[in-house]
Amino acid sequence: MSKTIAVNAGSSTLKFKLFDMPSEDVVAEGTIERIGEKMGHAKIKYGDGQKHEEEKPFADHGAAVNYLLDQLIDLGIVKSYDEITAVGHRVVAGGEFFKDSAVINDDVIKKIDELSEYAPLHDPAELIGIKAFRKVLPNAFAVAVFDTSFHVNMPKMNALYSVPYEWYEKYGARKYGAHGTSHRYVAGRAAKMLGKPLKDLKLITMHIGAGASITAIKGGKSYDTSMGFSPLAGITMATRSGDVDPSLVAFVQEKLGVSSQEMISILNHKSGLLGISQLSPDMRDILAAADKGNDQAQLALDMYVNRIVRYVGAYIAEMGGADAIVFTAGVGENSIPVRKLVTDKLAYFGIKIDQEKNKCHGVERDLSTDDAKIKTLLIPTNEELMIVHDIERLKKEQGK
Amino acid sequence: MSKTIAVNAGSSTLKFKLFDMPSEDVVAEGTIERIGEKMGHAKIKYGDGQKHEEEKPFADHGAAVNYLLDQLIDLGIVKSYDEITAVGHRVVAGGEFFKDSAVINDDVIKKIDELSEYAPLHDPAELIGIKAFRKVLPNAFAVAVFDTSFHVNMPKMNALYSVPYEWYEKYGARKYGAHGTSHRYVAGRAAKMLGKPLKDLKLITMHIGAGASITAIKGGKSYDTSMGFSPLAGITMATRSGDVDPSLVAFVQEKLGVSSQEMISILNHKSGLLGISQLSPDMRDILAAADKGNDQAQLALDMYVNRIVRYVGAYIAEMGGADAIVFTAGVGENSIPVRKLVTDKLAYFGIKIDQEKNKCHGVERDLSTDDAKIKTLLIPTNEELMIVHDIERLKKEQGK
Repeated sequence: MSKTIAVNAGSSTLKFKLFDMPSEDVVAEGTIERIGEKMGHAKIKYGDGQKHEEEKPFADHGAAVNYLLDQLIDLGIVKSYDEITAVGHRVVAGGEFFKDSAVINDDVIKKIDELSEYAPLHDPAELIGIKAFRKVLPNAFAVAVFDTSFHVNMPKMNALYSVPYEWYEKYGARKYGAHGTSHRYVAGRAAKMLGKPLKDLKLITMHIGAGASITAIKGGKSYDTSMGFSPLAGITMATRSGDVDPSLVAFVQEKLGVSSQEMISILNHKSGLLGISQLSPDMRDILAAADKGNDQAQLALDMYVNRIVRYVGAYIAEMGGADAIVFTAGVGENSIPVRKLVTDKLAYFGIKIDQEKNKCHGVERDLSTDDAKIKTLLIPTNEELMIVHDIERLKKEQGK
Repeated sequence: MSKTIAVNAGSSTLKFKLFDMPSEDVVAEGTIERIGEKMGHAKIKYGDGQKHEEEKPFADHGAAVNYLLDQLIDLGIVKSYDEITAVGHRVVAGGEFFKDSAVINDDVIKKIDELSEYAPLHDPAELIGIKAFRKVLPNAFAVAVFDTSFHVNMPKMNALYSVPYEWYEKYGARKYGAHGTSHRYVAGRAAKMLGKPLKDLKLITMHIGAGASITAIKGGKSYDTSMGFSPLAGITMATRSGDVDPSLVAFVQEKLGVSSQEMISILNHKSGLLGISQLSPDMRDILAAADKGNDQAQLALDMYVNRIVRYVGAYIAEMGGADAIVFTAGVGENSIPVRKLVTDKLAYFGIKIDQEKNKCHGVERDLSTDDAKIKTLLIPTNEELMIVHDIERLKKEQGK
C-alpha cells in the first residue's frame, strides 16, 4: 500500500495530509500549532473518525516533525515509514528561480536556503521540515511545491513595480504573489465545471482567507495577482493591511519612532480587519458586530468588500473580460454574506448569483443565475491535493 | 477695470495667470522656475503676444513673488495694484480641515502652516506667496484653493487604509488625493459636453501629466482617487513610482542602507517612467524610444498604460459603471498614442474612440465613436479658471 504525504509548514504551524494512492483518499490529517511557544497544540484525525489531540510544547519545527512522524507509527496510521513513498512540501518563496515544483535534492535545498530572505518567517521552517522528512524517509520521492511558481511567468508589465529597474536586477524587486497552489487548483476545477479547456478561459480567482489574494488567470496562466513582493500587499486581510501608500508608512514611522521593520510588522499583524475594526481579525466577528450596528465593524466590512471589488474590476479591465470569478479559502468558502456583498457590487458586469444556491459552505457549486454574463463559482481549495498531483506529474516526467 | 490673479507656487516654481474680469480673458501669464537654485528663469506672456524672459537667480519664493509684482507694473500689465481686486492661491495640502476653498485670513494662514507637514515641499512655498501678495494687495479678496478639498468627503471606505484606526485619528492617516481643482474643472466641463447634470453622472477623470491621478466622480463628488496619503501613490508617473508594496521599500532600504525618507525621495524622483526606462521621465522620449525597439522604453510604456487601465477598471467596478472617461493634463491632452493605447485596452467596456477625432492636441472634444457605450472625452484642464470661479462663488456667498 503506497501513501503520499503533503506537508505545509507555516511560521509557527505544521499541517499535513496523508493520502492513500492512487485512490487519493485522505487517511490522516492534522495540525501542530503554536510551535516555539510555551505550550503547543497537536491535533490528528485518522481512521474512521478517530482523533488524537495533545497539548505539549514544541521547541521548533524539527521537534514538531519528529512528533508527527512518531504519531504516524504510534497511532497505527502507518506500520512502517516505507509505506510513505512520496512527500510534497509547500514552500512559500521560490523567487524567480523555481518556475515549477521541483524534485528535492541537495541543490534545491541550497537554493531554497538562499531564497529565505524573501520569506524569512516561512522558508527556514519549511527547510527544517524538508530535512527532517528526508532523514526519516530517505527513499521517498520528495517534491517542493512553491506558492510563487504559478505567478513567476506573469507578464513583466504586471510583475514589475515602477521603481528603479536596477532594484529588479540586483535585489529581485518584483511581484512574487502567493497562494499559487490554491489559485492553480481552483482554476483547474473551474475549467472542469465550465466544461471548457483552461487555455480558452479568463478567470478571476479570489483566495480569501486570513491571508487573501486575487489572481487574474488567462489561458491557465497567472496574468496578474494582488499580492506583491510580499504577502502584505493587495486586498484587506485579517491582520494585514493590503495596499498602502509607502509615504504614509514613512510618515507614521517618524511619529512612532520605530524602525522600518517594526512598521512592516504592524502592517502584517495589527492591520487589516483587526486594525480598522479595533475588534477582531475574524470576519465572523466583524459580520456579527456590524449586524449589531458597530460602526467600526461596518467600516471594516465595507473596506474589505470594496477592495475585492476594486481588484475584480481591475482584472476584468486588464484581461478584457472574464468567464468566471471563483470564491475559495476560509472566507470565500464559508461566508454567505461576503459572497453576497461582493457579487451585488459587481452587478454592472453581469455578475449575479442565486441567493438560494449561495446558502452553502465549502461545496463545489456554480452560484450564478442563468442569465449571469460572468459566472460565479464556489470551489473549496485543496492545496494538498494539488501537491499530490504535482508529485504524480513529476514522477511521470522522470519516468518513476 | 477689475482683475483677478491666480497663483500656483510649486516647490521650486511660481506660476500665475492674470484674468480680466468679468470677461475671464487672460491678460498675462507666466512662470518663474528654478527658485532657490543658482540661476533661475522667468517668462511672462502679456498684451498682444508680447514676451518678457529673463535669467536671474531667485533666492526664495518671496523674491520670486516680489519680482513678479514688480514686472506687472514695469511691463505695464497693470497701472496700479489696485486693479487686482482678487487673488487665488493654489494650496496642495488642506488636510481634512479645508472641505472647500477658503477666504484667506489670519486663522486660515495659521491652519495652512499647521498642515505643512502633509506637503513639506509645497505648503511653505505657498504660504510665502500668500503672505507676499497680502502685503502688496491688502485689500484684494484673497482665496486659498486646495488640491485636496475635492476629495476630502469621499466615502470613508475609500479614503481610509486598512491600518490601525488610531493612525487616522492621531496622525490623519488617510487618502487625501491631489489635482482636485483639475478633476473638478474637467468634471464640470464633461457634464456640459454630455448635456447632462453633473449630479446624474459617473465620470472617471484621468489627469495624466508629470504627476498623474485618476478620480472616480459620482454625482459630481470625488468617490475615489488613485493618489493616496501623498502624491506618490497610484499610477506610474514621470518620476514617481505610484503603488508599491511597502515590504519592498523596507527590503530595498536595508540593501541600500538608507533612511526611510531617502527611500521616499527615490520613489518620488528616480522612479516611474524614468526608473523603468532608465532613459527619460518624458512620455515623448519613451514613445520615440519604444518605436525604435528599445525594450526598456517599451516596458515603461506598457506598465504606464496598464496602470491606467487597472484603475479605470477598478473605478468602473466601484461606481457600478461610468458615463465617460476624460483625458486631461500634459500627456492626456497631447499624447495621441497614449490615448489610443489606453482606450484600445478598455474596449471590453464599450470604450471606443474614433482615430480621426483623436488626431488633436489640447482641444475640448468628444473622441468617442457613435456606438461607444462609455464616452471618451478630451478636456484641457484649466485649474486657474477653476480658481477664478471659486473666487466668484465665495464673493457671492459672502455678499461681496
